[in-house]
Amino acid sequence: MRAVYAAGVGMMLFGRKDELTLVDMMADVGLKAMDDAGLGDRPVDAVYVGNMASGLFNHQVSVASALVDRLNLMPAAADRIENGPASGGSAIKNGFLAVASGYADVVLVVGGEKMREVIGPKATDVVACMTHMEAEYIYGVTLPAMAGLFARLYMEKYGVTREHLAMVAVKNHKNGMLNPYAHIQMEISMEGIYSHPQAHVNNPVIADPIHLYDCCPVSDGAAALLLVSEEMAKELDAKPVVIAGVGQATDTHTLQERSDPTDLKAVRIASEKAFSMAGITPGDIDVAELHDAFTILEIAESEHAGFFKKGEGAKALADGKTRLGGSLPINPSGGLKARGHPVGATGVAQAVELVWQLRGEAGERQVKKAKNGFSLNFGGFGNNVVSLVLRRV
Amino acid sequence: MRAVYAAGVGMMLFGRKDELTLVDMMADVGLKAMDDAGLGDRPVDAVYVGNMASGLFNHQVSVASALVDRLNLMPAAADRIENGPASGGSAIKNGFLAVASGYADVVLVVGGEKMREVIGPKATDVVACMTHMEAEYIYGVTLPAMAGLFARLYMEKYGVTREHLAMVAVKNHKNGMLNPYAHIQMEISMEGIYSHPQAHVNNPVIADPIHLYDCCPVSDGAAALLLVSEEMAKELDAKPVVIAGVGQATDTHTLQERSDPTDLKAVRIASEKAFSMAGITPGDIDVAELHDAFTILEIAESEHAGFFKKGEGAKALADGKTRLGGSLPINPSGGLKARGHPVGATGVAQAVELVWQLRGEAGERQVKKAKNGFSLNFGGFGNNVVSLVLRRV
Repeated sequence: MRAVYAAGVGMMLFGRKDELTLVDMMADVGLKAMDDAGLGDRPVDAVYVGNMASGLFNHQVSVASALVDRLNLMPAAADRIENGPASGGSAIKNGFLAVASGYADVVLVVGGEKMREVIGPKATDVVACMTHMEAEYIYGVTLPAMAGLFARLYMEKYGVTREHLAMVAVKNHKNGMLNPYAHIQMEISMEGIYSHPQAHVNNPVIADPIHLYDCCPVSDGAAALLLVSEEMAKELDAKPVVIAGVGQATDTHTLQERSDPTDLKAVRIASEKAFSMAGITPGDIDVAELHDAFTILEIAESEHAGFFKKGEGAKALADGKTRLGGSLPINPSGGLKARGHPVGATGVAQAVELVWQLRGEAGERQVKKAKNGFSLNFGGFGNNVVSLVLRRV
Repeated sequence: MRAVYAAGVGMMLFGRKDELTLVDMMADVGLKAMDDAGLGDRPVDAVYVGNMASGLFNHQVSVASALVDRLNLMPAAADRIENGPASGGSAIKNGFLAVASGYADVVLVVGGEKMREVIGPKATDVVACMTHMEAEYIYGVTLPAMAGLFARLYMEKYGVTREHLAMVAVKNHKNGMLNPYAHIQMEISMEGIYSHPQAHVNNPVIADPIHLYDCCPVSDGAAALLLVSEEMAKELDAKPVVIAGVGQATDTHTLQERSDPTDLKAVRIASEKAFSMAGITPGDIDVAELHDAFTILEIAESEHAGFFKKGEGAKALADGKTRLGGSLPINPSGGLKARGHPVGATGVAQAVELVWQLRGEAGERQVKKAKNGFSLNFGGFGNNVVSLVLRRV
């Protein structure tokens, strides 16, 4: 396989974007990524769009064709890639394969989702459309409900507490304060969301033991990455970041069918594949972006990806290892918790953050001397996971 | 790039399938393709699902993850590929790249759509969601309406007549009679749909000059293709068909923005790419499956793909060149017109037909000594097209 470079990135402030369409947002970040790479008028060979549910959120399909038209990139090939909340990660994987195979030299990957076009609970319903139709959805299972069940099991088995969950939220909100693109730029305190006698007012139960501040917001947004061949990277004099490892793995659709529902097999396998391809181990990673759609997931993923032993993720968090300045900063961007989670955009936004970190362009949230970055994009409830290793070369 | 073999195919009778879910249908054809290849218990590395609108048709997303679970293929990577009506073609392209790059040795590609879960006109609305939201959809433009506009222009410019359109329908219904998987297995005559004084009763106007029998039916269905590396093809002792050429190209989203709306640029470019990769010319093709969602498209595509000069497709049709036994049989399967058009399934079903033709397994509709096959999957109204060349080796 040929080497694949991340030559340009594009990002926007996530949030509620009533004034922009999905295609408006994707065009904005796509242009930024091409500009960032200095692509000029060189042709783009292919466009990959990561998007979960433009049909249900925006009553629109074929958004990749719409984006190519808006950006005037015809006759570039264009496909939309859907893998639930890991649509962005899957779009990067397929863009990677297009370059790695020799089929394309310049590939624009854009992740985007406009979720707030539907009203309130409808967004939760659309997200629940990724669950098992006959075994979960028809019984009213939602993603927050699954996170509640999973968190409860994890607490019982590994001694994780509600205080640990709150620590993830506080850390990631704090990081988000340093990220000008974060949807939620608001510092929160342990007192405010956990220890104050009135904390339950600020931070009500959503699906016990998951509280409001354990959940990512519902966001609109898009992010983009320009992938190029080595030869094109030289021509562009691109800042040197490569996609060094790409892993993807699936698990049973339902939590209930897993012999141990606290075992996130797909996270483990996808991450092992990415590390093996990159020729490194988890200990070589300097900065990680994990999929904290719910706080419990950051803790569980940090273990299953191999950064901490099983059951020791919460302790590592409490010890400060995962904060900025710790031995392995996790979610310096603020993660899904603070940056927001426009579903199809997330996997690409994670990679954008890693590119900035590896280039030394992450401003106040810069992780010093970062050489290897890792991202984990978690589809379904861990049933389809994409892990990436990015490296400064 | 590594050689990519089509080692197995799976197909089902298209039609109205109230008793099956989308995942039921995809699992059925997926199993058939693996059985056909004699895969046994060898692992599948990746699954690609071509599907346009499971969200809007079936209120479901992440159908690739659902399929992997149903087929018990975990931890195989799984992505859904969406490119409107060319979703199946795009799924094959991305599966091809996964094998060609060396990232995967065994890839299952499944196309499927369950359109008849929604009622009557709602299906036409869902299909119209692929049009330009601001320039077409909000004005009520549907795909049959676009086909009407396109057909009228083509008639004026190239002397195509309503009789020519009816000839496509009659030919493809006749071929469909020989295909046990065709949704519409019903012979029709020129008299019945065109020349009889009461023909307008049998064949009413849909969007002038497009009549009922110029349109493909609304179908449920799925089709599958197992792609493998050369080494795996040897191990499986696979019947020798390779994916020799893959081309994809885009054009403006709207018809109205094209300097000549009768010029299907994306068809031309995608097909040239496929032929160039396969190292052959259109004259080397023995059998073709074109995207006759509307009869006019078969004529126009047969010209833009390079089989006939511009403006001579209708004459070639009238001369019998494109019927079974002619110099270039087009749509021996019955095409979208008779086999049916479960949107995401179509590109894969076209490839399945080519594999059977190249293996000499097409029964009564066999094209003699077919060595090179061509398929064209037409997304949007020609704004995102995938062309394939399959070859017996």
